[in-house]
Amino acid sequence: MAAGPPPGSETAVDIHTLFLHIAIILISAKIFGMLFKRIGIPPVLGEVTAGIILGQSVLGFIPLSEAIKVLAELGVILLLFEVGLEADIHMLVRVGLWSTLVALVGAVVPFAGGFVVSYYIFDMPMISALFIGGALTATSIGITVRVLTDLGKYKSRFAQIVLGAAVLDDILGVVALAALYEFSKTKEVNLDATGKLIIHIAVFFIVAPFIARLVAKIFSYIVNKLGDLEVIPATILALVLFTGNVAHRVGSPEILGAFTAGLALSRRFVLPFAAFLHLDHKIIHKVEEGIGPLVWVIAPIFFVSVGLALNLKAIDFTSLEFWLLSLSLIAVAIFGKVISGFVVPGTLRDRLNIGFSMMPRGEVGLIFAEFGRSFNAIDAVGYAVVVFVVAVTTLLAPILLKFSVR
Amino acid sequence: MAAGPPPGSETAVDIHTLFLHIAIILISAKIFGMLFKRIGIPPVLGEVTAGIILGQSVLGFIPLSEAIKVLAELGVILLLFEVGLEADIHMLVRVGLWSTLVALVGAVVPFAGGFVVSYYIFDMPMISALFIGGALTATSIGITVRVLTDLGKYKSRFAQIVLGAAVLDDILGVVALAALYEFSKTKEVNLDATGKLIIHIAVFFIVAPFIARLVAKIFSYIVNKLGDLEVIPATILALVLFTGNVAHRVGSPEILGAFTAGLALSRRFVLPFAAFLHLDHKIIHKVEEGIGPLVWVIAPIFFVSVGLALNLKAIDFTSLEFWLLSLSLIAVAIFGKVISGFVVPGTLRDRLNIGFSMMPRGEVGLIFAEFGRSFNAIDAVGYAVVVFVVAVTTLLAPILLKFSVR
Repeated sequence: MAAGPPPGSETAVDIHTLFLHIAIILISAKIFGMLFKRIGIPPVLGEVTAGIILGQSVLGFIPLSEAIKVLAELGVILLLFEVGLEADIHMLVRVGLWSTLVALVGAVVPFAGGFVVSYYIFDMPMISALFIGGALTATSIGITVRVLTDLGKYKSRFAQIVLGAAVLDDILGVVALAALYEFSKTKEVNLDATGKLIIHIAVFFIVAPFIARLVAKIFSYIVNKLGDLEVIPATILALVLFTGNVAHRVGSPEILGAFTAGLALSRRFVLPFAAFLHLDHKIIHKVEEGIGPLVWVIAPIFFVSVGLALNLKAIDFTSLEFWLLSLSLIAVAIFGKVISGFVVPGTLRDRLNIGFSMMPRGEVGLIFAEFGRSFNAIDAVGYAVVVFVVAVTTLLAPILLKFSVR
Repeated sequence: MAAGPPPGSETAVDIHTLFLHIAIILISAKIFGMLFKRIGIPPVLGEVTAGIILGQSVLGFIPLSEAIKVLAELGVILLLFEVGLEADIHMLVRVGLWSTLVALVGAVVPFAGGFVVSYYIFDMPMISALFIGGALTATSIGITVRVLTDLGKYKSRFAQIVLGAAVLDDILGVVALAALYEFSKTKEVNLDATGKLIIHIAVFFIVAPFIARLVAKIFSYIVNKLGDLEVIPATILALVLFTGNVAHRVGSPEILGAFTAGLALSRRFVLPFAAFLHLDHKIIHKVEEGIGPLVWVIAPIFFVSVGLALNLKAIDFTSLEFWLLSLSLIAVAIFGKVISGFVVPGTLRDRLNIGFSMMPRGEVGLIFAEFGRSFNAIDAVGYAVVVFVVAVTTLLAPILLKFSVR
């Protein structure tokens, strides 16, 4: 799903205040990250918590301004580019079938469960139930990747299954959101448009890596001619943003375009029939070296912004209806993702690792909630419930995963 | 002077368009930079030219949106931090007297000349003449530093004199702008407030490096304890933004706060009586390594934005009055800075190098023009003239400098 900057309150702030906010965000992210690491919790959770404390839920000190959204989106785009750059393409292909099954089960079960609970048990309108189901299908690929990296499990087989599944889940999410959008306006699902969207995205994912690689090849030829390696980081960032923009135009989330650009530039993008696309290792090394510090600096803004977007104050914790619906949906949200790990052959631990990794809804769940609310498809209680379910699954997943990988 | 993001048209664009704009800005900056380098012109001029072509002057393709202003400002803040980091403090102190003289002469002569030409010869109102004089005092420290770096002259004695003078000129500029602002509202110059502003800025520049160094020391102690060097880039960026914000609060431009933070963290910040402030070389190396790619990526956005801010279409090139005033002021603008180099003992070449380096008004001159226009202190013709003078001095300086350093 489109990991656009998380929705939430929008405020314009002057540039000096903005820079102060960024400084506070960066420092808090690092302090909470370090503290959480000390007590044995993945640092990314510290960064999200920093956002919850600084934001509307607690202190109300830092609004989710437009500029912070832009930086957050830039952060997650760069993060996904780096993920693509370091992905093991051969393993991704080898585990592709399992990734697809995990993505499908992890989308269908929470969607169906969320719909059934909301529509049949809690008597909500059909459109609300559909949006709530949609929100439960989400996986925050950014948070998932960071947790796996924090735990040092990024290179393992299960992590590569999760990575593939999370990417597919993002695509399923954007297709579902487009269909829901259509449905909420016309009360009909346009299968034609949905089919076209899927084909566009599929074509993009097949064609884009080759074009991106070709562009990189031409560019590296020029750079080698001129002997000026300092232009690499900026040019690569431009390529990533271009690919992201094309992805957005075909209807896919921008971050998946960035991921594709990363795959295209990775060391492991070696194809028997495309030896002419071989990239100089010096160039690839420079790409990695230049992008690393950018990710370290900007990505935390994304994780903090997930916390900033959560408004726990919007929740009426004294309402019985809220608790009944929330607890039912949390159960569905956890079960639906955990069960997806069990379609993969392997040890209990591997299966749990996969399920827990797919659990955090993060900003993607919030996008569904925000979208639903803006179309009056879900009411205030439904919105509060989704926010709470997103918060619980996002904060619980890293902790559960930490125990299961041990 | 406050090198805030250059003024100009303000437009909100959606995030996908914005990322496309950033990609185009980065690619154009690199292409024009490389082309200009090929034909022997400093690359920074290519970047500014890319902005002129993409912006309102020619294609009107990329507006100077709020988000691009934020990134531009971030770029120049990081650039000035890096400049501070690499500055030779001992040489800066040794040439301090000459820097001061260059800054004073390079501010007083263009100001007086601009005022006399506008007020006495062209019969403009006093307030307009004062703003035009103010605009001519400016030095774009960002452009100056980049030109010197592009030419490989950054470490030379004359470059350090220029660096010190440009910093002082920025301070003189902000004081002048504050006084002009006061004058345009009350028709009186408040010497008391001006004096206070100067004292605040002076105290900041004396105290800030020590506090920044102390904070860095405490922080590096913690980092060493935890053995986690990846937190350095983000934390340093936070420190730079904090220092910039404090600078802004005392009335100084943010970029000078960033420069001060750079000085504080530099290898050469070694004081006999403050050995306890010694910073681990491993930490300093990590700071340099982490900040470099950030500067390479973000700083070009600043240089392109200077071009985006220039609106050459606002100029009526058929007006005789425009040409008479412009050419007079260009003569004053060039003479006033070139003469400043002659207060320094040295060869003719060194003196010309200093004068030409101080010449580009860049975004700082535009801030004066924009400020003057927003208070109705200068009319449309006056504004167009200032924009043209800024463009000419900014584009001419790197070329003249290139010939004189040869």
